Amino acid sequence: MLKELDLKTKIPEEEYTPLIKQLKPRLTMLQQEIIKKKIPVIIIFEGLSAAGKGAAVNSLILNFDARGYTVYNTRPPQPDELRLPWLARFMDQIPSYGRISIFDRSWYSGVLMPGVKSEKSASARIESIKIFERQLADDGYLILKFYLYISKKEQKKRLEALRDDPHTAWRVTETDWENVKQYDAITSRSEKLILQTDAPYAKWQAVAATDRRYARVRIFSAIADAMEHALARKRESIPQAEFSPVPETRFTLLPHKKIEEMDLMPSVNEEEYRRLLKQYQKKLFELQNALYLKKIPVIIAYEGNDAAGKGGNIKRVAAALDARSYAVTPVAAPSPDELNHQYLWRFWKSLPRTGHFAIFDRTWYGRVLVERVEALTSISRINQAYHEINEFEYMLHRWGAVLFKFWLAIDKDEQLCRFEQRESTPEKQWKITEEDWRNRDKWDQYTAAVNDMFRYTNTDFAPWIVVEAGDKKFARLKTLKTMIDILKKRV
Amino acid sequence: MLKELDLKTKIPEEEYTPLIKQLKPRLTMLQQEIIKKKIPVIIIFEGLSAAGKGAAVNSLILNFDARGYTVYNTRPPQPDELRLPWLARFMDQIPSYGRISIFDRSWYSGVLMPGVKSEKSASARIESIKIFERQLADDGYLILKFYLYISKKEQKKRLEALRDDPHTAWRVTETDWENVKQYDAITSRSEKLILQTDAPYAKWQAVAATDRRYARVRIFSAIADAMEHALARKRESIPQAEFSPVPETRFTLLPHKKIEEMDLMPSVNEEEYRRLLKQYQKKLFELQNALYLKKIPVIIAYEGNDAAGKGGNIKRVAAALDARSYAVTPVAAPSPDELNHQYLWRFWKSLPRTGHFAIFDRTWYGRVLVERVEALTSISRINQAYHEINEFEYMLHRWGAVLFKFWLAIDKDEQLCRFEQRESTPEKQWKITEEDWRNRDKWDQYTAAVNDMFRYTNTDFAPWIVVEAGDKKFARLKTLKTMIDILKKRV
Repeated sequence: MLKELDLKTKIPEEEYTPLIKQLKPRLTMLQQEIIKKKIPVIIIFEGLSAAGKGAAVNSLILNFDARGYTVYNTRPPQPDELRLPWLARFMDQIPSYGRISIFDRSWYSGVLMPGVKSEKSASARIESIKIFERQLADDGYLILKFYLYISKKEQKKRLEALRDDPHTAWRVTETDWENVKQYDAITSRSEKLILQTDAPYAKWQAVAATDRRYARVRIFSAIADAMEHALARKRESIPQAEFSPVPETRFTLLPHKKIEEMDLMPSVNEEEYRRLLKQYQKKLFELQNALYLKKIPVIIAYEGNDAAGKGGNIKRVAAALDARSYAVTPVAAPSPDELNHQYLWRFWKSLPRTGHFAIFDRTWYGRVLVERVEALTSISRINQAYHEINEFEYMLHRWGAVLFKFWLAIDKDEQLCRFEQRESTPEKQWKITEEDWRNRDKWDQYTAAVNDMFRYTNTDFAPWIVVEAGDKKFARLKTLKTMIDILKKRV
Repeated sequence: MLKELDLKTKIPEEEYTPLIKQLKPRLTMLQQEIIKKKIPVIIIFEGLSAAGKGAAVNSLILNFDARGYTVYNTRPPQPDELRLPWLARFMDQIPSYGRISIFDRSWYSGVLMPGVKSEKSASARIESIKIFERQLADDGYLILKFYLYISKKEQKKRLEALRDDPHTAWRVTETDWENVKQYDAITSRSEKLILQTDAPYAKWQAVAATDRRYARVRIFSAIADAMEHALARKRESIPQAEFSPVPETRFTLLPHKKIEEMDLMPSVNEEEYRRLLKQYQKKLFELQNALYLKKIPVIIAYEGNDAAGKGGNIKRVAAALDARSYAVTPVAAPSPDELNHQYLWRFWKSLPRTGHFAIFDRTWYGRVLVERVEALTSISRINQAYHEINEFEYMLHRWGAVLFKFWLAIDKDEQLCRFEQRESTPEKQWKITEEDWRNRDKWDQYTAAVNDMFRYTNTDFAPWIVVEAGDKKFARLKTLKTMIDILKKRV
């Protein structure tokens, strides 16, 4: 692919000027449409050292209103970023709807550049990239990827020119000369990567970049065409992505009992509770220290019926942990900024560093629970979500995280009893709102959504754990005991 | 202060239990009020190693609804954070209105901890802290600072106990033992720092932390009392801060001509323009390389009349720079999240790293321009803003940044002419809105605001530069030439 490019392609000055004069205002006006139609755009520039990535970015942005784009230069990760899943550090750079993010190097550098030693890790990253880009495309993102290519001779010539100009000499590093030496190896690696990550919804374009005028015209027209195409699809309400909305799952799903078939009332006596609570909390504290040392991240996802006792349950877990090593992320309705991104985006941003705990009080499952019951999202996006969530959890699992998914379950009568109790206790009144009563009216719809959630997201690497919560004390002991049993095996 | 604490103070179990039983629900209910009344709260824990900061945080948060607080553990800065002004890395941790941020170590660690070598740097940081906390308090922030203190003997005993428990042994580091040795020196340094940064609106509380029960009761009641006090002030609409709203300026203000006294129409011919533009852009490019190597940050603030040509001017500057080294931050109306923070907060978050350029298309001066003319903010907060802005720029200046403040000026007739031209050119129509016409109706009020801005923010370290923009070409050359002349002196 790269090797087949005609690197001698040129555009003479007299053809270039009229072409570019037409392209520039076209890009300017298209960006305004992109903003109006709220289409998010990702433009990636990868390529050889000195191939002209910086110049391409530089000339491109002069056509755009600065209020609508941001340029990101991907540098090696900071130490703290190495303690997060590999893609997490790019999350702040993903554009919100209607914005353009331009990458001078991107997540692909994490695969192409030295630093990724083992094949295994590179192939894991490639798999993550593919999932990630497909999920974004499914959400309406326009993704453009350019690879700028020049000959070895040209690369050397450009680096020498930079070196010989006293103002730019410092820019040429040892790595650059090393890259010239490794030219053939880098080309092969890049070709392979391009083939592996090319997709109809996130297409690679290899650009012969010897002639800057030619490269510029190629890039500008590709971007203008893609924007026009995306705008046309939006006008016709054709989904941006070009594949079936509910992909066949590639994960192994385990069977799960329906919630109404389970006994939710097992209980424990006060004395036993006090004894075991103390014992379990002590054990969890010890395990936490061991997990910290082994740098294993732990993610605890709490879902459950309203008033099932999530808050109190979380407090008993938190009380056992060191405040420095965990954070509770309460998940409420998304903020305006969160609504302007793919729905998993905000959860990527709350993941724990290695060795830490992240506790979610409600989770990404809101997509297939409240958003489904309240019809906040189209049925096709919700159907996709089961699969997207499994993929998300799969990435967490393969990163090395221990993931607990607790469903705290009570029955309808027990909920009524608790609601009434909250209303009559002054310091608990803030816990009960009109919305809780409205949700209760939809009990059966919620139950159906919960059973579907069990059915489609009970993967072998991230199974659901139903916590019978008719007796809050029993529930607290069960979550603690479950965590201890599983974490013990990891340290 | 620390040395005068009675470290033997204790609360016996039988007194503790009823006290804490009363304090815990009080804190729970107060947090709900804090959320409702949108009061932002900062709670800082500093103190000796093993004094119980972590335990204090741990016990405190169990009283709070997780939806309303976040805990931050301040660790040494990441390499990238060292390339920003010292306080910038804390900006993401400043709570929005109604939220609580709890710090286990904070900005004070940057002064107390090893790493701050010179006295000069420590005293500069202390000055920044004082400005920063006062500005937050002026904005309604409740700031609580606890210093937990124990005896040298007790510190040693606790570290030994941690070391002897196999589950916690790894937590005790060389630094901890070093701290025991340096006990007296650390105490003196801390005492001095506490005295220097104590203020009625950001009070230090030294807590004898030998007895954990006593420390807990002291901390819980201090927080509960302060919250009640803040809520009472809010109910009575008494400003949170306790000092005069317009502090006497400590900066040297330079005289500045009124805008109506200036000739805004100097011009340049096309040929001269083309020649000089090329020459200046080349020179700026060279300077940028030198500034990058010297790690000098450059901040370019663009303000000016609507249609004065800010966008085109910025493009000519940007075209000279490497895309990797600058970012344009367009400043529009604040987002909901930004409205829920002190108004300078969002600008802290867009500062350049050392060696980079940050270009602001409109700036923090919106506070004293549009917010004043449109009466979006109380007159007393706007009067404070002149001083707060000077302080902000002073911190940038002392950090080592070169700050340019350009006012692009056209007269009323010229603006009308440009508005009409925009309306009749298809690819420029997006640039002109109803709001532009409304702003134009308030031309005289804006002019008065601009003259006041010159009068009160034309400091010797960050003077205004009026760019006569009746001829756009002249204006572009002037900004470039001004930058070159000043930057030349810095490299």
